[in-house]
Amino acid sequence: MRASGELPRSLTDLGRAYRERTLSPVEVVETLLTRIEAGDKVLNAFIVVTGERALEEAENAEREILAGRYRGPLHGIPVGLKDLIYTEGVRTTMGSAFFEDFVPDYSATVATRLLEAGSILLGKTNTHEFAYGPTGDRSRFGPTRNPHDAARISGGSSGGSAAAVAADLIYASLGSDTGGSVRIPAALCGIVGMKPTFGRVSKKGVFPLSWTLDHVGPLTRTVEDNALVLNSLAGHDPGDPYSAKRPAEDFARDLRRGVRGGVIGVPRDFYFEHVGREVAERLGEVIEVFRSSGAGMREVEIPHLWETLKAQRLTLAADAYAVHEERLRSEPERFDAEVRERLMDGERLKAYRYANAQQRKLGANDEFGRALEGVDVLLTPTVPITATLVDQREVDIEGYEESVRSAVTRLTGPTNLTGFPSLSIPCGSTASGLPVGVQLIGRTFDEATLYRFAHAYEMAAAADLTG
Amino acid sequence: MRASGELPRSLTDLGRAYRERTLSPVEVVETLLTRIEAGDKVLNAFIVVTGERALEEAENAEREILAGRYRGPLHGIPVGLKDLIYTEGVRTTMGSAFFEDFVPDYSATVATRLLEAGSILLGKTNTHEFAYGPTGDRSRFGPTRNPHDAARISGGSSGGSAAAVAADLIYASLGSDTGGSVRIPAALCGIVGMKPTFGRVSKKGVFPLSWTLDHVGPLTRTVEDNALVLNSLAGHDPGDPYSAKRPAEDFARDLRRGVRGGVIGVPRDFYFEHVGREVAERLGEVIEVFRSSGAGMREVEIPHLWETLKAQRLTLAADAYAVHEERLRSEPERFDAEVRERLMDGERLKAYRYANAQQRKLGANDEFGRALEGVDVLLTPTVPITATLVDQREVDIEGYEESVRSAVTRLTGPTNLTGFPSLSIPCGSTASGLPVGVQLIGRTFDEATLYRFAHAYEMAAAADLTG
Repeated sequence: MRASGELPRSLTDLGRAYRERTLSPVEVVETLLTRIEAGDKVLNAFIVVTGERALEEAENAEREILAGRYRGPLHGIPVGLKDLIYTEGVRTTMGSAFFEDFVPDYSATVATRLLEAGSILLGKTNTHEFAYGPTGDRSRFGPTRNPHDAARISGGSSGGSAAAVAADLIYASLGSDTGGSVRIPAALCGIVGMKPTFGRVSKKGVFPLSWTLDHVGPLTRTVEDNALVLNSLAGHDPGDPYSAKRPAEDFARDLRRGVRGGVIGVPRDFYFEHVGREVAERLGEVIEVFRSSGAGMREVEIPHLWETLKAQRLTLAADAYAVHEERLRSEPERFDAEVRERLMDGERLKAYRYANAQQRKLGANDEFGRALEGVDVLLTPTVPITATLVDQREVDIEGYEESVRSAVTRLTGPTNLTGFPSLSIPCGSTASGLPVGVQLIGRTFDEATLYRFAHAYEMAAAADLTG
Repeated sequence: MRASGELPRSLTDLGRAYRERTLSPVEVVETLLTRIEAGDKVLNAFIVVTGERALEEAENAEREILAGRYRGPLHGIPVGLKDLIYTEGVRTTMGSAFFEDFVPDYSATVATRLLEAGSILLGKTNTHEFAYGPTGDRSRFGPTRNPHDAARISGGSSGGSAAAVAADLIYASLGSDTGGSVRIPAALCGIVGMKPTFGRVSKKGVFPLSWTLDHVGPLTRTVEDNALVLNSLAGHDPGDPYSAKRPAEDFARDLRRGVRGGVIGVPRDFYFEHVGREVAERLGEVIEVFRSSGAGMREVEIPHLWETLKAQRLTLAADAYAVHEERLRSEPERFDAEVRERLMDGERLKAYRYANAQQRKLGANDEFGRALEGVDVLLTPTVPITATLVDQREVDIEGYEESVRSAVTRLTGPTNLTGFPSLSIPCGSTASGLPVGVQLIGRTFDEATLYRFAHAYEMAAAADLTG
């Protein structure tokens, strides 16, 4: 067996090594726990590390695999869960003082499904307090830092989930995404992050931020890995009133079909406005890679996107206040000051504007649906900038002054309102080594096409680099 | 052919008379136009009477039927449409000064479907201004009066639709129901009124009051008639984002199956609280009639109904303000003063309470679903009182003081939030001759069972009277 430090990059390859018995789950978990011990002091990606439990689970997995009882591609794979996903018997804090000592008595459906697929929980990952912030630097447990530059943010709110995967501390993690909270840290940390279609993945046992905007999705280093994790998560859950009655499916089924003859829609207005120069350059390269892979490009129009974004933001602010109303009244001082201030902004909003926002949602569904007629996916930047500094709150984007919070959520928020599936994949780095992400948006319940396009890009880009 | 004044009571019988050629559509329309001319001066059920057009349509229907091109049970049947249902080329006022001279350039899907089924439009029926009131006595065109006592309200907001059917001026009408606006006037006027499952009937071209609470449904004199009209209305409409993707079905299919062995759930708490003595007595008789028809009775619990009602009322107030915001800002004086005041009450409501109301909706769906487990339908009063006087605003219900508006919508509102189908059928009158209604609530998309129970009651009650 190989020495530690030489673990395969993808969970797909790790699973192969398990089956070929060149690596064992116990050995892998030990290696990763050592890495976490050393590396997470700086990153602060974990709130809780479940080392002892992980080693037990690794032993079980090892026994099962050796006995030929192979559960599937996640068997023996070390994973992390954003610390607002309930885990029975394991502390779940929401990154907050309120739940600092909270130990749930049941597990979220997604946690149970991952476990049943054979994965091994290495720990609970850091989150912006109550997931209410896209920077990942306001948590009771301190900021999560970017593996590519520790002075910078991981992005958030699923910052720990992204940083831990990007830093090779785990193979996959789950995050939640209400305005971009999976896709933003995936982009800023240089990994793959999926916000599936609304209703595709159960939210039972996932602490809410906004009932109608929250989505749970996987973060991984490769596209195939991401599809395999989503395979284990998807499917109807009667315990979640928002869960869609859709059968399970294999999201990796089309990965190798390629994109020749496919068409990518490029919505220039809104999505390519106020985008940093280096981000725009990477996007241009992505488009070229897709072209040389045989995909066509078409400019598409999606009207009213600013209004759609505003409706998403209003819904979020009102829902978040509703979720935290009692805590804000009884113990406001226990919130992080910045998070509290933002939550309080939701108090004064008017109900009729919320009603209008729900109408905008219907309009936006229609508009995204039309934009996707005749194209396979839409391509946009995930985030208009690269990772900013920890605690930085304003940013200048080629002369456009904007709050960091607004900048990083601006291009992800619209599909939280519509529920359309949206996938962020890494597309290289800037000169200073900071990752850039590209977002693919697909038709409702058509995650498989997103993965197909993403995989084709990933393969072609890798060939470019090695060729 | 028969002399005018001797028309059959039900559209089913009228259709039979057409096929047997003992009556002709032209003759029937002429008779009804004469009745309207005479009787509607007092009732004020119509805003627009489309006499000329109706006679033309009647001639067409007569020709088609004589030629053997029989379209079905609605062919040649005179109907009315609440005057917020768009009719191409026919004035549609919403009972308001704003739309006094408005002539739509397209017809609502329901209007088109009724027309295609062969029905004849006799006119547009009076509505509480913008459908925002359950009394039917605030309309630009004056109050609609109750056919059983002209000093009293028809109920609303579909007051004209109910009064015209109850007074034998038309055979069927359509109303809209956001908090009870079909069922309340049906109950107070002594006819059958259906609020179908949310999404069952298209709302395209129906002026909104609340996007998420509005339902369109038929008012008729008999249960079978009601099912036949719903047959013509139901079915998916891509033009309405709330329209459910459900196939057409025959709602009259089970009418004669009876209720022997069936079970009726009786939710005593909330639904039987603060109900007038004579209404309660009629309800007791209904229960006896069902028992002797072979149905079992079971007490059921539906928790949180007051909270569910409050959530429905908050959603309604916020949505209604959103719909009318521009008009309230620019020309407030054109509203009826009472309607304006009520609309303005929606302005101050908070968005987070709207968000909470949407959560209550999910809870209520669950609670109604559980209450219906093991029973076929729920039975409640439709309205706790009989028709109050025109302009009366407070009522004393056995010592319980309540606004008329709250009293009459209290028992119908909850299923506007949940979207469960709810049918009001007449169940006799008080000593002073005022009608009482009973409400049957069914499972989502199970209107057929409601009609089956209602028809069994109707038959048994008629047999009691004649036996």
